[in-house]
Amino acid sequence: MVDCTGGRVSDDSSADDIKFLDLTMTHYLSGPLRIVDAEGIPASPGDLLAVEICNLGPLPGDEWGYTAIFERENGGGFLTDHFPSARKAIWYFEGIYAYSPQIPGVRFPGLTHPGVVGTAPSAELLNIWNEREKLLTETNHASLNLCEVLHQRPLANLPTPDNCLLGKIEERTAEWHRIGNEAARTIPGRENGGNCDIKNLSRGSKVYLPVFVDGANLSTGDMHFSQGDGEVSFCGAIEMSGFLELKCEIIRGGMKEYLTPVGPSPLHVNPIFEIGPVEPSFSDWLVFEGISVDESGKQHFLDASVAYKRAVLNAIEYLSRFGYSKEQVYLLLSCCPCEGRISGIVDAPNAVATLAIPTAIFDQ
Amino acid sequence: MVDCTGGRVSDDSSADDIKFLDLTMTHYLSGPLRIVDAEGIPASPGDLLAVEICNLGPLPGDEWGYTAIFERENGGGFLTDHFPSARKAIWYFEGIYAYSPQIPGVRFPGLTHPGVVGTAPSAELLNIWNEREKLLTETNHASLNLCEVLHQRPLANLPTPDNCLLGKIEERTAEWHRIGNEAARTIPGRENGGNCDIKNLSRGSKVYLPVFVDGANLSTGDMHFSQGDGEVSFCGAIEMSGFLELKCEIIRGGMKEYLTPVGPSPLHVNPIFEIGPVEPSFSDWLVFEGISVDESGKQHFLDASVAYKRAVLNAIEYLSRFGYSKEQVYLLLSCCPCEGRISGIVDAPNAVATLAIPTAIFDQ
Amino acid sequence: MVDCTGGRVSDDSSADDIKFLDLTMTHYLSGPLRIVDAEGIPASPGDLLAVEICNLGPLPGDEWGYTAIFERENGGGFLTDHFPSARKAIWYFEGIYAYSPQIPGVRFPGLTHPGVVGTAPSAELLNIWNEREKLLTETNHASLNLCEVLHQRPLANLPTPDNCLLGKIEERTAEWHRIGNEAARTIPGRENGGNCDIKNLSRGSKVYLPVFVDGANLSTGDMHFSQGDGEVSFCGAIEMSGFLELKCEIIRGGMKEYLTPVGPSPLHVNPIFEIGPVEPSFSDWLVFEGISVDESGKQHFLDASVAYKRAVLNAIEYLSRFGYSKEQVYLLLSCCPCEGRISGIVDAPNAVATLAIPTAIFDQ
Amino acid sequence: MVDCTGGRVSDDSSADDIKFLDLTMTHYLSGPLRIVDAEGIPASPGDLLAVEICNLGPLPGDEWGYTAIFERENGGGFLTDHFPSARKAIWYFEGIYAYSPQIPGVRFPGLTHPGVVGTAPSAELLNIWNEREKLLTETNHASLNLCEVLHQRPLANLPTPDNCLLGKIEERTAEWHRIGNEAARTIPGRENGGNCDIKNLSRGSKVYLPVFVDGANLSTGDMHFSQGDGEVSFCGAIEMSGFLELKCEIIRGGMKEYLTPVGPSPLHVNPIFEIGPVEPSFSDWLVFEGISVDESGKQHFLDASVAYKRAVLNAIEYLSRFGYSKEQVYLLLSCCPCEGRISGIVDAPNAVATLAIPTAIFDQ
Repeated sequence: MVDCTGGRVSDDSSADDIKFLDLTMTHYLSGPLRIVDAEGIPASPGDLLAVEICNLGPLPGDEWGYTAIFERENGGGFLTDHFPSARKAIWYFEGIYAYSPQIPGVRFPGLTHPGVVGTAPSAELLNIWNEREKLLTETNHASLNLCEVLHQRPLANLPTPDNCLLGKIEERTAEWHRIGNEAARTIPGRENGGNCDIKNLSRGSKVYLPVFVDGANLSTGDMHFSQGDGEVSFCGAIEMSGFLELKCEIIRGGMKEYLTPVGPSPLHVNPIFEIGPVEPSFSDWLVFEGISVDESGKQHFLDASVAYKRAVLNAIEYLSRFGYSKEQVYLLLSCCPCEGRISGIVDAPNAVATLAIPTAIFDQ
Repeated sequence: MVDCTGGRVSDDSSADDIKFLDLTMTHYLSGPLRIVDAEGIPASPGDLLAVEICNLGPLPGDEWGYTAIFERENGGGFLTDHFPSARKAIWYFEGIYAYSPQIPGVRFPGLTHPGVVGTAPSAELLNIWNEREKLLTETNHASLNLCEVLHQRPLANLPTPDNCLLGKIEERTAEWHRIGNEAARTIPGRENGGNCDIKNLSRGSKVYLPVFVDGANLSTGDMHFSQGDGEVSFCGAIEMSGFLELKCEIIRGGMKEYLTPVGPSPLHVNPIFEIGPVEPSFSDWLVFEGISVDESGKQHFLDASVAYKRAVLNAIEYLSRFGYSKEQVYLLLSCCPCEGRISGIVDAPNAVATLAIPTAIFDQ
Repeated sequence: MVDCTGGRVSDDSSADDIKFLDLTMTHYLSGPLRIVDAEGIPASPGDLLAVEICNLGPLPGDEWGYTAIFERENGGGFLTDHFPSARKAIWYFEGIYAYSPQIPGVRFPGLTHPGVVGTAPSAELLNIWNEREKLLTETNHASLNLCEVLHQRPLANLPTPDNCLLGKIEERTAEWHRIGNEAARTIPGRENGGNCDIKNLSRGSKVYLPVFVDGANLSTGDMHFSQGDGEVSFCGAIEMSGFLELKCEIIRGGMKEYLTPVGPSPLHVNPIFEIGPVEPSFSDWLVFEGISVDESGKQHFLDASVAYKRAVLNAIEYLSRFGYSKEQVYLLLSCCPCEGRISGIVDAPNAVATLAIPTAIFDQ
Repeated sequence: MVDCTGGRVSDDSSADDIKFLDLTMTHYLSGPLRIVDAEGIPASPGDLLAVEICNLGPLPGDEWGYTAIFERENGGGFLTDHFPSARKAIWYFEGIYAYSPQIPGVRFPGLTHPGVVGTAPSAELLNIWNEREKLLTETNHASLNLCEVLHQRPLANLPTPDNCLLGKIEERTAEWHRIGNEAARTIPGRENGGNCDIKNLSRGSKVYLPVFVDGANLSTGDMHFSQGDGEVSFCGAIEMSGFLELKCEIIRGGMKEYLTPVGPSPLHVNPIFEIGPVEPSFSDWLVFEGISVDESGKQHFLDASVAYKRAVLNAIEYLSRFGYSKEQVYLLLSCCPCEGRISGIVDAPNAVATLAIPTAIFDQ
């Protein structure tokens, strides 16, 4: 598997490649894989595909990755109003550990996982996606003001033939245009799994994906050596290329048996995951809290996104007292094994979110 | 410490006490405690108060608690549009474990903690709170529509002399009215800590609270035998009465040294926590995912509250296949040691939230 | 429950009370408790008694304990040839944590447990104990030379009316003498459980004890705030008084169903334990190794006791480089949450034992 | 790295290869590696060699291993008096998990590690080894009777030119004979590390080895997919071939600085280990206890080997009630992630050892 940008980021100290990276060209995925059972019968719509993450990691001789802040004009990130400029940190791997010349004094074990794993949507589901995301972009932006910064970012990435990644389809043909105009971009996680960025989906974990088309057409990619909950700087995990071994099992009729749609159609489901027992164990956590009052002092109503933003900002302020720039901490919190929790979501008007950072990652 | 309702909920199987509970009468807190150092000098504004949770638990002979769903007309909860009616589960404690006759087949260790721990606000801070929350209630509700259900609940609980809990202040006096008209209600967590409902703040943990008034005036209460992240049904932890042993240390000038305001005033800070090493360890987790598409199929923009709502709904649907009613699961997910995570908050337009449930709590 | 010595050790810095402590007066136990079921029918021989440790801890106002090295002439310990003189450390408790003025720079969470929990033996089992232990004391000591030091300690503590702890039995009566002459002393763990000193038998754990007499006659005591595997200095846990809540369940006929005798009689069984999920979690361990070559350089054959002695000695040597006396480290390793493992027991002629110490207990 | 037998065990269901395996031909190691620093200066006697286990695992397409019981006449094991006949279980790997057709209903994550990692001895140290082990074999066996069974096994494996593994040395030459007559066999762990079989020495762990000869001459091998504490059946880990990535650092003069000899010479030291944070986490453990009374009912004096033998026998008896043969359980306890503890080593006359088994490895 290549990294999410298809190799366009270099192992050097300049953030120029990040600054001018064309984000419409993501993700470079592996697949689609047609999944068949032992008798050769393919997965069918309505089945559930159990995908076990058996093994994964960097390829020998290529043990490095990067974490980046995207330029505000080029995708931005969770805190793009605070950090509008591109930055990059290179991470080198020593077995389970990562360290970065750009963020000295830090070393942590990675919980390596694929950011993207998903099945292909049916035409019906694709249509649902495209319609609802288009509707969003047409909304009056003022009503998207809750978290201020968020409306500074693209609201959605609608299908376009520009910079499509369509595998063997010949570029600029009629077919290429047709597909490009309806193929959903892979930035967000959706009903099919996709870019769900669940940091604990590592060795020994399993994801149960709904099957929407014949053969399931499983794709995966966007491998992360490590990620913090939220992946806050957007290109925020330690992005890497590497290998991945999967084991698939088809549960016939499993969608109906195990997934209940919540929404207007039977397709409105979400995958289920099983997280395995192998995770780094930490004994001490430093926890930052945020409430749903934004940086201007405005009260929002039970908004966990605003609360989490505050928690992350609080953590950045605190950690930058120990010799780090705020950009360094922003990068670090995107990729280190920190946990982002929704602690309280009912005590109106404040949602409470927490960000817990294992102190063992620091050497001071 | 009495329970959050001051003992108004009974150890029986009827939810009538919950249904007609007057929520304006919360929380029954212990305190305020004036904190002085070894020389008798009180904590002062600008100090940081390090509060260590040394020990806590139910009183002998009183080992029980309750989890409830509030009636929609009476406070509601995170899923009040789905579960508008009052329900109650009683939990009995056997040492570290809780079990409930109302939710059979489940037993789990509690991570007992105080839901509320906070210092008193200064007049200036109190004013900030009252203004921003009042502004919220005056907002056009349509713009609070993101999470649909949420606007079905009270937007905020503004100060009122009705049902004030004012300790030794004589009821219905001028002083009582004056205070009641400006005293912030304790439902939400705020800059002073307060009802932050952080489920891991148990034995051996520490919270660093900003001091706003002379003596700090520390209050605590709302003890929870156990809580799930989010405390989704609102009265959702296992609410209990019990004892609490604290150890306080004053860090002189610590606010400036350790807390950086994020907002329009130096008072816009949040507490920091240290979580201790003693937590139940679970090996297998079942994880439900939600994205920020609501039940009507509408796309929201990076809204972690919507995403978490979907994750909780998905978990309820799944677990109700194993012989539980959906109300039972809603109650269970409010109080069992489940973890609510903000997994992805940047992949526009979908926030991804996850709810992880330790399988060991079930006997099936 | 009083502490194992019945309160003969004082909360002061002198080790004189330890030096002259009469060890024949142990353990001061609570019990025996006659266990009956809900119908009032007592536990019977052949039943299994499931004892759950529900809650335990120091009594309010009495939050302290001690760790001691016994004088060689007065019981000694695992390393009595290296540390022949009495020493004492007092530990004070702050919630889950213990610290000692005698061993500064160390603070750790305790996993509080009863050192002794056991049922009463039948006459037949008592006879087996007394005979085999008497036989041991009559053995030619030269053949007990394996671990050198060990034969410097009492080989066994045979029944004697001197300093018996016989509850309500009147002292110096005929009955008192009869009992004293046959009652097994409680120093070693045996078939009935007893002084098994399993450091993880804390809140939420369960022990399944065989029942040998009508009513089971359960006794417990010797409460430890914390203990290291092996309890190497003998009075090595943090000894304390306190309270203990148990829950008992009788499994009728459970001995035959669940315990298989390994030995010449059906009474040669051992209890089974279930260890609960609540344990301090540590991320970094420093591990010392020992092999079955003793301090004189002599090779022993797969002797795990010798190997563990070496591991403990190696740890003492290493840690004493950080400003501690060797006696301080010996005391510390007796009571801190360190783990003693039998790593290899087959690679003739060397057993390999390891002692793992969580680095988080040190502040340097 | 090849497996410990150099590939003489086959991936089939017959134990014949085990039965007739010539144990004098072990271990097939990788090395010796001459370790130099960045300037090319080799490690010298007195240095400490810090070896970090970066990565390791099976080679793609070769994901299997085996666990065996050796015939009593051919090496035996910890319980050879109970299980005198050869047996074999094949394990297949699915990512972090292993399962065996010979032991159905069991699946567990492996903590993969090298059983052997060590530096080369100096002539002086080699002499110490050979002399003390020779002395042991010349001892009157009656005095080695403590654990009965143990004297049924070879007491030591003294140097012999028969079946030497000497790398590039030409067989049957004078040099070959000279070396064979003095080269210590690698069965036991010793001062140089060697076959220490520490099951947690996995990814992210570090071992600090003393350097006795110029260049250190580091050797490693005997890779284990998983091992239980004690490796009780002798060929008891899941033996495998695979790859291993190490990172070495030379700590100049580190032996004197960090290792204190305990014994008659400065060479009587043992390595120190640091165990990393990545370990499978289990929530429930079933714990079996043993005391130092052997199967004949004879009392031994604080003998941890006897006590551990009893604990293992008790576990075998219990687990064989669930449809397994005792040989299956013996194999399982040799290789699954079970923990063998020295719980009490001072309560004369009984040592208490415990064997803790994570219940999550069973599907029943």
